[in-house]
Amino acid sequence: MAKDMTLLWGSGSPPCWRVMIALEEKNLQGYNQKLLSFQKGEHKSAEVMAMNPRGQLPAFKHKDYVLNESYGACLYLESQFKSQGSKLIPDCPAEQAMMYQRMFEGLTLNQKMADVIYYNWKVPEGERHDSAVKRNREALTAEVKLWETYMDKKCGFMAGKTFSLADVAVYPSIAYVFHYGLSEERYPKLAAYYNCLKKRPSIQTSWPPTWQEAHEGSEMLKDL
Amino acid sequence: MAKDMTLLWGSGSPPCWRVMIALEEKNLQGYNQKLLSFQKGEHKSAEVMAMNPRGQLPAFKHKDYVLNESYGACLYLESQFKSQGSKLIPDCPAEQAMMYQRMFEGLTLNQKMADVIYYNWKVPEGERHDSAVKRNREALTAEVKLWETYMDKKCGFMAGKTFSLADVAVYPSIAYVFHYGLSEERYPKLAAYYNCLKKRPSIQTSWPPTWQEAHEGSEMLKDL
Repeated sequence: MAKDMTLLWGSGSPPCWRVMIALEEKNLQGYNQKLLSFQKGEHKSAEVMAMNPRGQLPAFKHKDYVLNESYGACLYLESQFKSQGSKLIPDCPAEQAMMYQRMFEGLTLNQKMADVIYYNWKVPEGERHDSAVKRNREALTAEVKLWETYMDKKCGFMAGKTFSLADVAVYPSIAYVFHYGLSEERYPKLAAYYNCLKKRPSIQTSWPPTWQEAHEGSEMLKDL
Repeated sequence: MAKDMTLLWGSGSPPCWRVMIALEEKNLQGYNQKLLSFQKGEHKSAEVMAMNPRGQLPAFKHKDYVLNESYGACLYLESQFKSQGSKLIPDCPAEQAMMYQRMFEGLTLNQKMADVIYYNWKVPEGERHDSAVKRNREALTAEVKLWETYMDKKCGFMAGKTFSLADVAVYPSIAYVFHYGLSEERYPKLAAYYNCLKKRPSIQTSWPPTWQEAHEGSEMLKDL
């Protein structure tokens, strides 16, 4: 029981979800946790700010050690609980290189996705431009097409023969683009990856609770 | 001699510089390398695109393993050459947690810095707004102030008692903000860190060659 860990999180946020998948994979269930609402601005509450001065989720702690950056938290958990649960960094140099490459490319996918999905939320009304919206969508389309070329048709993993930190890091973003309407027909390899890993216990257990309901924006990426 | 490694890089780019510092720290000198010019658009050349389809630098390879993402490359080099050169990930859990936390916070510093310094380069003329410029500068100011609170007055490291991947990852961004005019008087702790590590062999050797000359924008951040 991971009673010496605390996670403050928001539903659907890829950074929060990454940490939750890593905790499940490392058999670190039973941590203290609290679901907060971005809509209600709870990520700016005193409770969060005390752990994460940028007012962002996740806010995560192991003992007194603060690890709010999701990639940092995942790497730390793998390092500290190496022989517990799934081994998330492959030993084979070729697989390890691919794992690190895909894991960090995931940040670009996530950024380009956020530039499209959160445009109206991030850019004040008077500063919005159709030309920027178009450019952002084109950039995301090119990015998603690149990821489609990375994937196999089979029910495989992001890098190598086993589930790794590349999957922990990137799966939430892939799920996100499908949640916002990406076409499974147009991106069949990404869709196969998405649907296959859905059933993995660490992912199923940590699936964003708010994603059960219909939502605004569910067709936002359908023409990509 | 690291003859099985190839690095295509651009001068001053924090991601390129990170990989160069890591290679020096791991005693991996003698790699194949080529300095390319962003100004001349050489990062979009066929040579780069063949290794890095996003047309970005660094483009880095060990044997046949592509590691273009600077954080990924640094983590890979530390993992593959663990007992060679400097040990870049501390064993002590508290120091290791701090190292991962600062390392990944560095991405936020770098992003906010780029939003200010490259605003005119990234945003087409018809889409520019003074309100955005002001907001970006305020965000960078808050970020730099936060980093100032992280530092010690002494000639220390970013996390723990030794030089680590947190320094490899973040030092180039700290150097960057000073190169663009950040006030050493107003940020004395960051300045002490910056000036102290300047003399470290891995950093001195890999110092951006174009930074010897006077440059446009050298006062860009002086009022921050």
